[in-house]
Amino acid sequence: MTKNFASDNNASIHPDILAAIARVNEGHALAYGADATTQSMEAKFAETFGEGAQVFPVFNGTAANVLSLQALTLPYHSVLCAETSHIEVDECGAPERYTGCKLVKLPVRQGKISVEDAQRALVGIGDQHHVQPRVLSIAQSTEYGTVYTAAELKALSAFARRNGLYFHMDGARIANACASLGLGLRELTRDCGVDVLSFGGTKNGAMGAEAVVFFDPKLCADFRFVRKQGMQLASKMRYISVQLETLLTGELWLRNARHANAMAKLLLAELRAIPEVRIQNEVHGNAIFVSLPKAAIPRIQKQFWFYVWREGDTHDEVRWMTSFDTTEADVRAFVKAIRDSI
Amino acid sequence: MTKNFASDNNASIHPDILAAIARVNEGHALAYGADATTQSMEAKFAETFGEGAQVFPVFNGTAANVLSLQALTLPYHSVLCAETSHIEVDECGAPERYTGCKLVKLPVRQGKISVEDAQRALVGIGDQHHVQPRVLSIAQSTEYGTVYTAAELKALSAFARRNGLYFHMDGARIANACASLGLGLRELTRDCGVDVLSFGGTKNGAMGAEAVVFFDPKLCADFRFVRKQGMQLASKMRYISVQLETLLTGELWLRNARHANAMAKLLLAELRAIPEVRIQNEVHGNAIFVSLPKAAIPRIQKQFWFYVWREGDTHDEVRWMTSFDTTEADVRAFVKAIRDSI
Amino acid sequence: MTKNFASDNNASIHPDILAAIARVNEGHALAYGADATTQSMEAKFAETFGEGAQVFPVFNGTAANVLSLQALTLPYHSVLCAETSHIEVDECGAPERYTGCKLVKLPVRQGKISVEDAQRALVGIGDQHHVQPRVLSIAQSTEYGTVYTAAELKALSAFARRNGLYFHMDGARIANACASLGLGLRELTRDCGVDVLSFGGTKNGAMGAEAVVFFDPKLCADFRFVRKQGMQLASKMRYISVQLETLLTGELWLRNARHANAMAKLLLAELRAIPEVRIQNEVHGNAIFVSLPKAAIPRIQKQFWFYVWREGDTHDEVRWMTSFDTTEADVRAFVKAIRDSI
Amino acid sequence: MTKNFASDNNASIHPDILAAIARVNEGHALAYGADATTQSMEAKFAETFGEGAQVFPVFNGTAANVLSLQALTLPYHSVLCAETSHIEVDECGAPERYTGCKLVKLPVRQGKISVEDAQRALVGIGDQHHVQPRVLSIAQSTEYGTVYTAAELKALSAFARRNGLYFHMDGARIANACASLGLGLRELTRDCGVDVLSFGGTKNGAMGAEAVVFFDPKLCADFRFVRKQGMQLASKMRYISVQLETLLTGELWLRNARHANAMAKLLLAELRAIPEVRIQNEVHGNAIFVSLPKAAIPRIQKQFWFYVWREGDTHDEVRWMTSFDTTEADVRAFVKAIRDSI
Repeated sequence: MTKNFASDNNASIHPDILAAIARVNEGHALAYGADATTQSMEAKFAETFGEGAQVFPVFNGTAANVLSLQALTLPYHSVLCAETSHIEVDECGAPERYTGCKLVKLPVRQGKISVEDAQRALVGIGDQHHVQPRVLSIAQSTEYGTVYTAAELKALSAFARRNGLYFHMDGARIANACASLGLGLRELTRDCGVDVLSFGGTKNGAMGAEAVVFFDPKLCADFRFVRKQGMQLASKMRYISVQLETLLTGELWLRNARHANAMAKLLLAELRAIPEVRIQNEVHGNAIFVSLPKAAIPRIQKQFWFYVWREGDTHDEVRWMTSFDTTEADVRAFVKAIRDSI
Repeated sequence: MTKNFASDNNASIHPDILAAIARVNEGHALAYGADATTQSMEAKFAETFGEGAQVFPVFNGTAANVLSLQALTLPYHSVLCAETSHIEVDECGAPERYTGCKLVKLPVRQGKISVEDAQRALVGIGDQHHVQPRVLSIAQSTEYGTVYTAAELKALSAFARRNGLYFHMDGARIANACASLGLGLRELTRDCGVDVLSFGGTKNGAMGAEAVVFFDPKLCADFRFVRKQGMQLASKMRYISVQLETLLTGELWLRNARHANAMAKLLLAELRAIPEVRIQNEVHGNAIFVSLPKAAIPRIQKQFWFYVWREGDTHDEVRWMTSFDTTEADVRAFVKAIRDSI
Repeated sequence: MTKNFASDNNASIHPDILAAIARVNEGHALAYGADATTQSMEAKFAETFGEGAQVFPVFNGTAANVLSLQALTLPYHSVLCAETSHIEVDECGAPERYTGCKLVKLPVRQGKISVEDAQRALVGIGDQHHVQPRVLSIAQSTEYGTVYTAAELKALSAFARRNGLYFHMDGARIANACASLGLGLRELTRDCGVDVLSFGGTKNGAMGAEAVVFFDPKLCADFRFVRKQGMQLASKMRYISVQLETLLTGELWLRNARHANAMAKLLLAELRAIPEVRIQNEVHGNAIFVSLPKAAIPRIQKQFWFYVWREGDTHDEVRWMTSFDTTEADVRAFVKAIRDSI
Repeated sequence: MTKNFASDNNASIHPDILAAIARVNEGHALAYGADATTQSMEAKFAETFGEGAQVFPVFNGTAANVLSLQALTLPYHSVLCAETSHIEVDECGAPERYTGCKLVKLPVRQGKISVEDAQRALVGIGDQHHVQPRVLSIAQSTEYGTVYTAAELKALSAFARRNGLYFHMDGARIANACASLGLGLRELTRDCGVDVLSFGGTKNGAMGAEAVVFFDPKLCADFRFVRKQGMQLASKMRYISVQLETLLTGELWLRNARHANAMAKLLLAELRAIPEVRIQNEVHGNAIFVSLPKAAIPRIQKQFWFYVWREGDTHDEVRWMTSFDTTEADVRAFVKAIRDSI
């Protein structure tokens, strides 16, 4: 299928990762994570994120988020999150269903929440009639293609700590955020006060590999049971682990993300020259939200599939994403299709 | 790592399946199952299992079982199953946790349950104090390496139907059962009255691919929500689907299972010649349970890792499994190690 | 303790109800609802609400709401409700915890939701990534002391029916709504298109007696299991049933509610004469929300306890409620205390 | 209705308790447990069970058990219990549904479990595939009418402590056990190593009042949220609290239980003289299990209703219970009916 700009989930497997899967496909390996590949991947994560960091591969991003939250909560707790967050909008209620917790939605600006709004949501503390806030969860990059600065993250984590909350980061696109800010994985997570990270590989060149990363071993003493009961323990784990390991090898994660971000910048520059296309967000990572005349949309979709995000009267808002395998030629072909359709 | 006889989960990916993953790694594909590979896999399943059969890929066997049960139950129902079943013993309580249902354990002979014992478990029907039986769940092949005959399955499904129960089959090793009996996938599932099948690929040469297969579309009208909320919807689904499709192509599933079974028969024949090794089960598929002198076990394990199943005083019971990639040479090396250790 | 205006939950048991409890305290009665008192109460409900109406006593209002919702939903559904609703705000997350569903909050005017806002919340229908709206739940009277007219209810239920939603009414204070509008219990519930009603007795003179009332028997075919598993099946049920029966006898429910409403009107009239007290809501039932100078509040509370609803800078919003046992003298004493404190 | 011998749940409210309810029905009281009656009841429990004992009234026995277990477990834990226990058999799966945990059934002799069988159930510790034992739960008196001695309880609690398990007692009939053994409430619970007690009032003369009693405040630091979310927080709590308080006043709990036990002894003595009636259990408390010729049962039931416990070929096993309000005349009339029917 022609490459499209609908989602980084539509991208392929990076050749290095596919080659690595083939490489570990030798003979037998112990199942359920007792294999050498998983151990070597774990060492890579400890090296990347620092001493005590513990990594648990899972199958997808929803699971990484839900199991992260489950490790931090009891059913009468609540989770503060952006009203636009993936856990609130796009996980079919899995967080509520599997943690029992209520999600408390905070308003966003440029896809980001503020300490002020989080503070305002701290109501009913200690009152038995009300759920008790326990986790502040953000996405980095956000679902709106923007990125929290390290200072913003530190302010949020300080707020969390002051108020007895854990700080969870949905890092399905953490690589794009690091690439955007020029900061390392540890710098933008653990060093900013994150307690638990959903580490994303799938959108960044893996076939299907996500992980829950804990920075405090006390928080994951029993997490192996949470993962197994959560239906997220892979039997042939070496094939998941090797994807994660390869991403952390030779900074493949960073190279992939930098490329995707660069392609987004290129697309952005081209779009700015088309007056009918109105850019809706600051573009920090690999997502661009634009408003388009309704009539143009089906014409573009015939060549390049994408989703309508929010319908309007004369214009709709749509999301366009780049990925590690987007080429300059893809961008130019896409821009041509847009120009031809407007 | 040297091949071992601990579990078919320790086996590698069959080369055809790895090649197929590489083959679909071309350009972009729509995420979440809207891709062409998934559609073509779905057609393959409909062809194999007959009209109306609907297939939903998931990540692992625990999920296939739990989501199958969730599709068939409400929280005040119960599930009748073997006391040795995977859902009862090896899934860390996931079935209870995610369906809310109680599992009602039935005694086994040669790993199999009987209609008589199932009948005996039908108590408290209609009484609000008691959970209400709703599903009869069996594994085929069983966790004990044995296989229900088609007649046994039909008797169980007739019992289920008479009593308003659904009939679920955990087919993590359905291929080995078909190979053992010389019956086709449809013949041994749908045609025996199975309502929902957990179809296993991972233990039979896939990298990680299982599926829930419904034979009555009414039972899965809303299953896409159950799967998504159940954290089992793959974004890059083409890579799961192609594994399942390849298994059903050119009867790879059957060739793999036949080979594994043949290697088990070979191993069995060799073991019979060693008096200290007492065979514990009928060997229908790819698992052999033996009783061994305790002292011999660590000596064998040094060369070929495996698990102790049940500890005894002078002898322990252990499980040995073959898989699609077990060779005759592997079997002979293993037998030599056993002989040398006893 | 002096009577207060903090909540109708602070009121006593109506003497007729206490006498009725004593009256059925004769000899033995079958447990769990098989007793004659329960049967006679059930007949009373069928007579009041019409043929086919089925009543299930439970212990408290949270349970009536949660079990109502559980009878109507599966875990991937959502429930549309007012952002100020009891199920959203005051039940410690019980609805999410026990149904698995997400609550979708709608904005309110005078405590009431509108068809327009409900319509706007119908997003993602059929999309596996999103929870699926299944129930529209309102409170009558609302938590803000206002009442939906019959026309408003019919518009909401028509909207629900058009969109495949069930219509649930939290009737913890249904009696006050009926009294306010001069309509009967059936007229304001079943005849307005309500599918399931949480019928409230406790706030209206009972000791502790609520019920779930279904108007379509198909919706409650298995509800006895939901109630029992939901920890809401009373063993000595006669003592709950007789409370409900007594409320429906000689229109005690209506007399109690009329009196409470009348006392609220009296209090309202007195408060209107105090300029520092700003009435915040239309007063239809037995609750008045007022804004008061902060300094006055602790002075009044010393004599008459009540809760602060929402804190402000110079003024706080507080809720005052009347109940069946509020007397004119109580109102006058309270108003005097307010005047003396301002 | 004539008194029967079907269940102590069929009994009435003890006059002292009804009088106490009427006595506190004066004016208003703060809701949700902030009232003076609840405080005075709490003091009574602390006095009875010793310093640090904390009591939380709930509505029924199922809730007392389920919420006790929820306070002690996470969803991947398991609860060891008798195969005949109320939590396993008679709560419609509520424990699994609301804790997520698996119940692990232990065999019983005379309704009681042994340390040896509990020890045997400690398998898979630390293995991520298996639920992790966390609670040992027993009923005292048992569902079979027998009583654990203090020595037996101490052996069980020592076993629990050695193995990192909590020790929960379902004390729906703790009073009958104390009366049987001549031991106090504290002596037979806290002093025997019980961590959490489901304290039963309903079967012993209350209208409907149970409680969860913690002996270690650390275990209930957040229990108020568990209770509220568990739909078990009474708004007009004074009326539940006063029942519990009255039971603890002047040893009403003990007088009621002693009387019920004495009536069971009287009934037992009479039954021993009827050869067709075969006593099935040791009779320690207020329950007698007998085997009866099938034909006699409907004839007796016409005069005195009771349940058949277990059906046999020529004889059925039935349960007969006495209660605080059973009189000697009731026993003699019942025995006459039995004699006349055999």
